[in-house]
Amino acid sequence: MKQHGLVVAVVGATGAVGREMVSILEESSLNVAELIPLASERSRGEHIEFKGESVEVEVLEEDSFAGVDLALFSAGGAVSKKFAPLAVAAGCTVVDNTSAFRMDPNVPLVIPEVNAEALKGHHGLISNPNCSTIQMVVALEPLHRCFGLKRVVCSTYQSASGAGQRALDELRDQTVDILNFKEPKHEKFPRILAFDIIPQIGSFYEDGISEEERKMIQEPRKIMGLPDLQVSATCARVPVFICHAVSVNAEFEKDVDLEQARDALRAFPGVKLFDGENPYATARDVSGENDVYVGRLRRDPCRKNALDFWVVADNLRKGAALNSVQIAEALVQADILSFKRN
Amino acid sequence: MKQHGLVVAVVGATGAVGREMVSILEESSLNVAELIPLASERSRGEHIEFKGESVEVEVLEEDSFAGVDLALFSAGGAVSKKFAPLAVAAGCTVVDNTSAFRMDPNVPLVIPEVNAEALKGHHGLISNPNCSTIQMVVALEPLHRCFGLKRVVCSTYQSASGAGQRALDELRDQTVDILNFKEPKHEKFPRILAFDIIPQIGSFYEDGISEEERKMIQEPRKIMGLPDLQVSATCARVPVFICHAVSVNAEFEKDVDLEQARDALRAFPGVKLFDGENPYATARDVSGENDVYVGRLRRDPCRKNALDFWVVADNLRKGAALNSVQIAEALVQADILSFKRN
Repeated sequence: MKQHGLVVAVVGATGAVGREMVSILEESSLNVAELIPLASERSRGEHIEFKGESVEVEVLEEDSFAGVDLALFSAGGAVSKKFAPLAVAAGCTVVDNTSAFRMDPNVPLVIPEVNAEALKGHHGLISNPNCSTIQMVVALEPLHRCFGLKRVVCSTYQSASGAGQRALDELRDQTVDILNFKEPKHEKFPRILAFDIIPQIGSFYEDGISEEERKMIQEPRKIMGLPDLQVSATCARVPVFICHAVSVNAEFEKDVDLEQARDALRAFPGVKLFDGENPYATARDVSGENDVYVGRLRRDPCRKNALDFWVVADNLRKGAALNSVQIAEALVQADILSFKRN
Repeated sequence: MKQHGLVVAVVGATGAVGREMVSILEESSLNVAELIPLASERSRGEHIEFKGESVEVEVLEEDSFAGVDLALFSAGGAVSKKFAPLAVAAGCTVVDNTSAFRMDPNVPLVIPEVNAEALKGHHGLISNPNCSTIQMVVALEPLHRCFGLKRVVCSTYQSASGAGQRALDELRDQTVDILNFKEPKHEKFPRILAFDIIPQIGSFYEDGISEEERKMIQEPRKIMGLPDLQVSATCARVPVFICHAVSVNAEFEKDVDLEQARDALRAFPGVKLFDGENPYATARDVSGENDVYVGRLRRDPCRKNALDFWVVADNLRKGAALNSVQIAEALVQADILSFKRN
C-alpha cells in the first residue's frame, strides 16, 4: 500500500457505471492521489469532475497503465479481455466489472460482505459479479448462514441502465414517441422497452437460457462457495431507468424461522430490511443509495424450508461501481492491493 | 336455450373489462338479442356501441335482472356480492369476474379449455378466475397432462389495466409528469408506477402474502382439480398499459421431455407457442389478441422434472372478458345456460 496516495484509472469513465465509479471514488476511503479517466475515441475531449477538478478523459491505449496502481474496468467484455491483462502486466491491480474473467478459476469473484477472503493470493485481476447476482447474493448469504441454501428460483425486473448510458436515453425517447403517437425506435434493446417487458437480456444459448440468466445461475455458486447450488433464473428488462428488482424463492436444508431470518438480514452489512407496515422499497426509494433493500420477506406458502422475498438495489452502485470500489477498499485494508507478478 | 336470442346484461359496462366484454359479445357465437349495459350512478347518461347501435347505460338496481338470461359481472367484489345473488334469484345466469365467489365450493371456477366439465350442475353462478391465474393455468394444463404438475414458483409482471380504466389514465399522467419534471400523484396504485415496479397487488394478509398472490396460490388448485398443488407466487405491477406476463418455474412428477412439452402446448386450444428464432412475445404483440402466448420454454437448468417458461396474454381479454364470454358460450353449447332454482 502506497503511503502517498493511489493512481487510479477508470476504464469506461464516461459510461453509466464509469460515472458512478468516479463519484463513489470521491466518497471512498481510498486515498486517490490521481484519477485517470479512460474511454474510447468517441469520448475524446470530454471532461470528468473529480474532487472539484475537471479532469480530461484520455483515450485508452495499450500503455495507459504505466504507473497506475488500480484500474476499475467497465467498458464491455471485449475491452477487458484485451486491456486488463496489459494493465496487470504493467503491475496494476484490476477490478473488472465485465463478465470476461468471472468464471476463470484463477480470478476471484468477490462481494466483500460475502467472500472477501477470496481476495487473498490474487494475481492482479479480480472480477466484480453481475449486477442482479450481487444484490441477490447479498440477501441470500445471511439466510444461507442460518439455514443452508439449496435451491433458488428467481425472476428479475432489470432497469434500462444495465444496458448503459445510451439505453437510458433510448427508454426516454421511446416513451416520448409513444405518448406523441410516433413510432418508437430501438437499438440498445432487442425490442421496444417503453410500456413493455422484454424477457431477454443478452443472447440465448442453445438450451434456451440467456447470457444474463447463465450469470445468475453460475456466479452465486462461485461467490458463495456452493458448487451444487441449484439456480433457475428468468431475466427480464423493465421500463425503469435505474435499480434492478429480483423476486426470489429460496429453499434451504433446514426449516426456516422467520424471526431468525429477519434478524440475520438486519445484522448483515449492506442490507436494509423493509418489514412490518412498510414491507418493501421500490426504485424511487433506492436509486442513488448504496444498500441492498430486502422486502416482502415471507414463508413459502407450501414449504417449511423455503422463503420468498423481493430485493431492490441501485444496479449502477452496489450492482457495479460501489462493489468494485469496495473490492479495492478491501484489498487496501488487507494490504494486498499490490501483487506478485507470476 | 332460447330460440329467439338472449338478453344479456353487462355489469360494469363502462369499465376497462366491461368495454372488452361488450366488444367480445359482438364477435361471439352467442345470439344476443338485447344488450343491457349496467353501471353505477357515475356512468348515468353514457352510451355504449353494440353492433352499430348506441345503447344507453342503465344504472344498476336490485330489479335490473328481470327477464335477463345472462349477466356478466365485472364491477368489483362488493357489487357482485350484493347483486349477483339477486340476479340468480331472478332466474338469470351470472358469470362473475370478481373474486367474490371463486373459492365457494358451490360455484364452478372455470377456464373452458381446462375444466368446462365443472359447469355441469351449476346453480346459476359461475366464477371467472383471476387474470394472471387464467393465463398461467392455460399454459400449465397441457404440461400437467403430460408430466403431472407438482409445484409452481411464479412471478408476475402485471399491467396497469388490471386495476381498471382510471388506472390506465393514472399511469399515463404519472409518465407525462415525470418527463416534465413535475411531481407525479397516485391514487389507484399504492405507489407511483411510472418508471417503477410495485411488488404489491391488493392488501397483505398476516402471513405477508398479497391478495393477488393468494388467488394465484388457491385458484389453480380448484381449476385443475389438484388440491395439493404447491404454488408460490410473487405479484408485481409494472408500467405497462395492457397485458400481463408471468415467469413460471413448474415442477412435475415425471421428468420432462421438451419436444413433448412443445407439442402439447401447440395442440392446446387458445395457446400460441413462440419458439426457435422468435422465442417470446411481448405486450406490443399480444394486446388485443385472444390467445395465451407461451415463450422462453426451456428445461430447468438443475432439475430434469422442471420447466421454465414465460406467458403473456391480454389481461382484459383472455384474463377477463373473453374467458367470461367463453364460459357463457360453453353453457349455451352444453344447453345448460338456464338452471333449476334451488
